[in-house]
Amino acid sequence: MSTKHSIHDIYKALEAGTLLQVKSLLNNALHPAEIGHFLESLPPSKRLVVWELIEPEIAGDILLEVNDEVRAGLIKTTQPKDLIQATENLDTDDLADLLQDLPSSIVAEVLQSMDKQNRLRLEKVLSYPEDSAGGLMNPDTVTVRADVTLDVVQRYLRLMKNKMADNTDCCIVVNRTDHYLGILWFTDILTSDPSSTVAQVMSHDVDAITVHTRDKEVAQLFEQRNLISAPVVTKSGLLIGRITIDDVVDVIRDEAEHSLMSMAGLDEDNDMFAPVLTSTKKRAAWLAVNLITALLAVWSISLFEGTIREYVALAILMPIVSSMGGIAGSQTLTIVIRGLALGQVSKSNTKSLLLKELAIGTLNGLIWSLFVAIIAVAWYQNIDIGAVIAIAMLVNLSLAAVAGVLIPIAMVRIGIDPALAGSVLLTTVTDIVGFVAFLGLATIYL
Amino acid sequence: MSTKHSIHDIYKALEAGTLLQVKSLLNNALHPAEIGHFLESLPPSKRLVVWELIEPEIAGDILLEVNDEVRAGLIKTTQPKDLIQATENLDTDDLADLLQDLPSSIVAEVLQSMDKQNRLRLEKVLSYPEDSAGGLMNPDTVTVRADVTLDVVQRYLRLMKNKMADNTDCCIVVNRTDHYLGILWFTDILTSDPSSTVAQVMSHDVDAITVHTRDKEVAQLFEQRNLISAPVVTKSGLLIGRITIDDVVDVIRDEAEHSLMSMAGLDEDNDMFAPVLTSTKKRAAWLAVNLITALLAVWSISLFEGTIREYVALAILMPIVSSMGGIAGSQTLTIVIRGLALGQVSKSNTKSLLLKELAIGTLNGLIWSLFVAIIAVAWYQNIDIGAVIAIAMLVNLSLAAVAGVLIPIAMVRIGIDPALAGSVLLTTVTDIVGFVAFLGLATIYL
Repeated sequence: MSTKHSIHDIYKALEAGTLLQVKSLLNNALHPAEIGHFLESLPPSKRLVVWELIEPEIAGDILLEVNDEVRAGLIKTTQPKDLIQATENLDTDDLADLLQDLPSSIVAEVLQSMDKQNRLRLEKVLSYPEDSAGGLMNPDTVTVRADVTLDVVQRYLRLMKNKMADNTDCCIVVNRTDHYLGILWFTDILTSDPSSTVAQVMSHDVDAITVHTRDKEVAQLFEQRNLISAPVVTKSGLLIGRITIDDVVDVIRDEAEHSLMSMAGLDEDNDMFAPVLTSTKKRAAWLAVNLITALLAVWSISLFEGTIREYVALAILMPIVSSMGGIAGSQTLTIVIRGLALGQVSKSNTKSLLLKELAIGTLNGLIWSLFVAIIAVAWYQNIDIGAVIAIAMLVNLSLAAVAGVLIPIAMVRIGIDPALAGSVLLTTVTDIVGFVAFLGLATIYL
Repeated sequence: MSTKHSIHDIYKALEAGTLLQVKSLLNNALHPAEIGHFLESLPPSKRLVVWELIEPEIAGDILLEVNDEVRAGLIKTTQPKDLIQATENLDTDDLADLLQDLPSSIVAEVLQSMDKQNRLRLEKVLSYPEDSAGGLMNPDTVTVRADVTLDVVQRYLRLMKNKMADNTDCCIVVNRTDHYLGILWFTDILTSDPSSTVAQVMSHDVDAITVHTRDKEVAQLFEQRNLISAPVVTKSGLLIGRITIDDVVDVIRDEAEHSLMSMAGLDEDNDMFAPVLTSTKKRAAWLAVNLITALLAVWSISLFEGTIREYVALAILMPIVSSMGGIAGSQTLTIVIRGLALGQVSKSNTKSLLLKELAIGTLNGLIWSLFVAIIAVAWYQNIDIGAVIAIAMLVNLSLAAVAGVLIPIAMVRIGIDPALAGSVLLTTVTDIVGFVAFLGLATIYL
């Protein structure tokens, strides 16, 4: 494909300052999502230069593709009249997404300029939370009744040409009161006898999604049932829209990236080139939380000042105990956090998981405590130091496994995001247990 | 949706030992992917009980949905005749995926039982790497010529009924020599005048994907162009298959989870309930790598044994310097690793990224070194210790930012996975720099 070449060419043209060339490459060679992706990779000064060169007609599509932080930055620097133009030509669901990030004066103006029917549709989408099926759905659906023939449906579809939303691959079959009955796939219209009725050909395989279903659950349904699109209904079964997979793919990626970014105290909407002060502030908060952890660890070490003064070897060896516990615990924690995100860790298997992780932790504890003990004995010619570090490591790795399972599960139960807070809490446990076990045992036995 | 209830009911029935009930719930209430998801969440003993209860007709679909490690475990415990039955009724692309994991005796038998045409199609898919467009594609496409009318196409489609692959939403337009020309969407067949020719209605918007394109790149194309399906061609443009989004969604999720799992030394195909010994062995390897890091850190501390003996406060405070550096560096590392995975970090923006991260690292270094210095001075009533720890932290946080940018970029350049090895190497740097800066400065100035 030519995307990579184009992006490279744009970079070069940008460096050379030949903006007309950048403009033509941008608007001709790349799709809106690719331009969005490219904008995300640019430092702020260049990003604004490129943004200025983009045709207003595709600006809306591009704003939808970039992450929240980048979008907010671009919106701030765009003229109101250009923003209003950017909202034109968008599907209703996309327009709803974009409006939620625009200044309220512009939202009012956009709503005013719409005809009544479209405004009502839009307000319907806006009335549901962004992270629910209602927020993802597009209210523009093609509906048919069950008692008409395919021939009639096809004539109706010809009338609807140019009015259908992107990726429409079916009609939704509803009854007289607009309640969902089934799906009439375009494939089935094309391959069935035109005189058949919709009722004879329609599929009952696709369950409708209730409008308040969380976006994360919607993504799971799409993934697990290999759906391309699904109807959205109210609690009572009234059809109100349709979700297509292209909206869901973003949720799947965000969901999968959420754990990765949260474990480093970041969020998946992070702008790689956010202003230095903004980033510094956000990261300072995470460093502050971790400083408290470090201070707790340091305080636990200070309890054994006398012992360390007597045996400096302890001060030298102690990072091994805490860091091996931290690494082993993080492995368990990562597995459990992913399992929780996928809905595969629940009450039913917590006990099995705990026992299994404890067994692995203890076994690895045995292996590595023996290994480290040999090194310590060889180094300091002191068998007692070897025994103390071995026991401390065994205790720490076993406990790390237990903490790695129980901490994230407990957090979910009290409503805290385990991906965000789990690793800090786990490290606190493995640091303190590691230091106290090692230095405490040394105080008693050496 | 009822999935959650069903799974909960199955768990309960499983606990109660009412296997007939489990069987009926499994085979009636859940889709294959949901059963796969459920199997992944079960400890091995229960997993095998449930596996035994599954109808052979859907066993193939389920094997395709579970991750590699779980799949290997299930295949090992299944009778050859059941495995052969599991391969029936699968689309060619799915069959190809499954065959790659089956024992060769079974593969031979399956190939023998197929008619020649299907065997040739299958062998074509098998001849491409699993992680390429060729490995993802389904060779079963519906092709039409550009010069026929839509009316003719529709009559042809009626003949093809039941022979189309899942999620077929278009015909692919080819010339006399089977070279790709464009897409004829079912939507356009339905909404256009039946007497129009294919050439008048077909779309040229979708670029074909070359068969050797990496699966990761295919996923990026689907995401960035909001594709539902795309044709696959040879270098010379010969049509050989079609990729649909349901195959790509798995790649997107795997790709996004890869970084998370790798950073803990795990892989995304991890079976949560792999046998204890298997898991212990895999994790031991990671602990071994990290032990080397820890030993290097410990060795760097031991260089300053005399200084520590004199000032025990140093031994107590030193974990703050290394851990704050590690945390700050991990944040930078995570951002760069994600940027690399998304293709948003390249030569063109490395310098900007480096300068920005260095600025953030230095600013946060200033803030937190001041803060920690105040604590240290208050604690030990010694201004020099405050000065030493402040300078050491500032050095470590600034260097952590530089290392967080350069380590993963360098790794990609020499062909090592930055998600897997990046964090170990980064921690080695922040530990050693932290300890040496702190204890070294203390040796000189105290």
